[in-house]
Amino acid sequence: MNNPRPAVSWVGDAPSGALQLIDQTLLPVEYREIRCATAEVVWEAIKSLRVRGAPAIGVAAAYGVVVGCQPVAQSTRADFNAKLDSVVQYLAGSRPTAVNLFWGLDRMRRVADASPSLGSAEMLDRLLEEAKAIELEDREMCASIARHGLPLLSECKGVLTHCNTGGLATAGDGTALAVIFAAARQNPELQVYADETRPLLQGARLTAWELMQRGVSATLICDSMAGWVMHEGRVQAVIVGADRIAANGDSANKIGTYSLSILAKAHNIPFYVAAPSSTFDLTIESGKEIPIEERASAEITHAFGKQTAPDQCMTYNPAFDVAPATHITALITEKGVIQPVTKERIHAVLTGNGQ
Amino acid sequence: MNNPRPAVSWVGDAPSGALQLIDQTLLPVEYREIRCATAEVVWEAIKSLRVRGAPAIGVAAAYGVVVGCQPVAQSTRADFNAKLDSVVQYLAGSRPTAVNLFWGLDRMRRVADASPSLGSAEMLDRLLEEAKAIELEDREMCASIARHGLPLLSECKGVLTHCNTGGLATAGDGTALAVIFAAARQNPELQVYADETRPLLQGARLTAWELMQRGVSATLICDSMAGWVMHEGRVQAVIVGADRIAANGDSANKIGTYSLSILAKAHNIPFYVAAPSSTFDLTIESGKEIPIEERASAEITHAFGKQTAPDQCMTYNPAFDVAPATHITALITEKGVIQPVTKERIHAVLTGNGQ
Repeated sequence: MNNPRPAVSWVGDAPSGALQLIDQTLLPVEYREIRCATAEVVWEAIKSLRVRGAPAIGVAAAYGVVVGCQPVAQSTRADFNAKLDSVVQYLAGSRPTAVNLFWGLDRMRRVADASPSLGSAEMLDRLLEEAKAIELEDREMCASIARHGLPLLSECKGVLTHCNTGGLATAGDGTALAVIFAAARQNPELQVYADETRPLLQGARLTAWELMQRGVSATLICDSMAGWVMHEGRVQAVIVGADRIAANGDSANKIGTYSLSILAKAHNIPFYVAAPSSTFDLTIESGKEIPIEERASAEITHAFGKQTAPDQCMTYNPAFDVAPATHITALITEKGVIQPVTKERIHAVLTGNGQ
Repeated sequence: MNNPRPAVSWVGDAPSGALQLIDQTLLPVEYREIRCATAEVVWEAIKSLRVRGAPAIGVAAAYGVVVGCQPVAQSTRADFNAKLDSVVQYLAGSRPTAVNLFWGLDRMRRVADASPSLGSAEMLDRLLEEAKAIELEDREMCASIARHGLPLLSECKGVLTHCNTGGLATAGDGTALAVIFAAARQNPELQVYADETRPLLQGARLTAWELMQRGVSATLICDSMAGWVMHEGRVQAVIVGADRIAANGDSANKIGTYSLSILAKAHNIPFYVAAPSSTFDLTIESGKEIPIEERASAEITHAFGKQTAPDQCMTYNPAFDVAPATHITALITEKGVIQPVTKERIHAVLTGNGQ
């Protein structure tokens, strides 16, 4: 099984190195790595979704701060700090709603604030160190999720997933897809069914590509086929990611996840949600409090570069939905598996008292 | 509410008239009617899916026999019969697996066989009469299904449908969609949710267009959104068509129907299947005996002229699936409503002993 290059990485030293990305807008038709040696190139890459997935964006932004500060590595610390501020502010505008973006940038700024007497060249080294730490932590998070989730898939001949939760969305192997990669390493016969995931087809464009890159047996289906695939006994588990998880375990994820959770329950197939502990929002009691973003009509009516619905056709395009905790067999986090999915169990595992 | 021109109709008299079709390959971007004045043009229209839907194909083929025989309207009956035979054989090759095509052509040939002493001009008139009878019967079938189904939707604020089962697929108003049209005439506030129906998008391209043509409030969704639409209480019924119904009521229909039947049951929403009695295959005990056609990978990986999945990506592309009778609240036929869906009740209604 190949282990492809990460979606986000740093090449070289602090003064002259650069951020390297896989351009996800070209996949699956073309594989191209892009070298981002200026803050402007990083900004454009985030803005244009050349890098996507919350964790991957956070890492890319951190490295973006390093390349943005390279021109002032020989300047005074005052000049360095001024440049750092402007780079952070500039990069924060690339995707105004991406929480991980702000988180990554804040962390970089705090590192600089913590060492006001360091020289500029040393500060640049220190910033690269911090960005690499962010990347490493993300990779470790992915590896821990894979390790905790692996036993849950050990008896499966087939598994179904939705959207893209793999290496392209993180600095490591991903979340739900990382568990699948681990299971496929253990059982090379594992059959992975990937929902294409309309409207934006992340499953077809990215997940199928990642699975094939690693030599995992991948079968692409339309979203409407998932129930029939379960009926035919082709899969023994469903595993997906999450965008936000409430205190009771209700999990918001890409539209279609709710239906999958019902279909899995109807077929007595376990339904797993894999996500880092940072995805949990314990200030929210249940999924009812999670607002559902509605997106543009054109994603449905003008997909694939072609008009496929009548002019002025009304659409309903919720970007995600919420799988209820009662339908989730287990939550898989880097801190351990939460099963059964209850408020108490979530609290225990997240605070390290669950094992 | 507009009542648009039928998908299939005859314009003019027998010697000089022609079959008129809506070119469904251009919808929804362009509306164009095509005049089919030769058997060759009819053949091409069926072959290229300019006309589709089993009942509509049967009607188009019958009219195709008339235009094909126009050149011999002044010839001897022997020459007329020879031409008729060659036209029937020629048209039968347009879509080799379409049962309604053969059925329509056979019926036309039997009419000619039954009147061997009629002159050619009179025989051509008689053939047009028979083709019009086939069209009329189909329109009546649609109207009866709508009439029987209407009470089932009378309390609905919203209804969900899948694929295309409307005027474009029949000579009349359709099957499941005819019931929806009737319900929308009764309740202009009715909200109709149409699944786009991947991979071939009949819902987006054809159903949304038909609903908008008639001024019915239509909302297009991706197939993966149907469950969430039910969860949010937007629909109080699901109604779909069928390709083949077994003796026990198991109903084969466009892929995705099986999942909808489970999702409807999970939300306590009635699930209706509307289809003519000719759809029932009582020689088949249950849905297990219905073979599932698998179609080409490119329908999923290269939709609408663009590559959306990796080269050599494996797919699973079943064209339809089977909703189990236990998940179907009622079957709606031109002979009446079958509820509950049991073998005995099906037999009673189809043989006219059910009302």
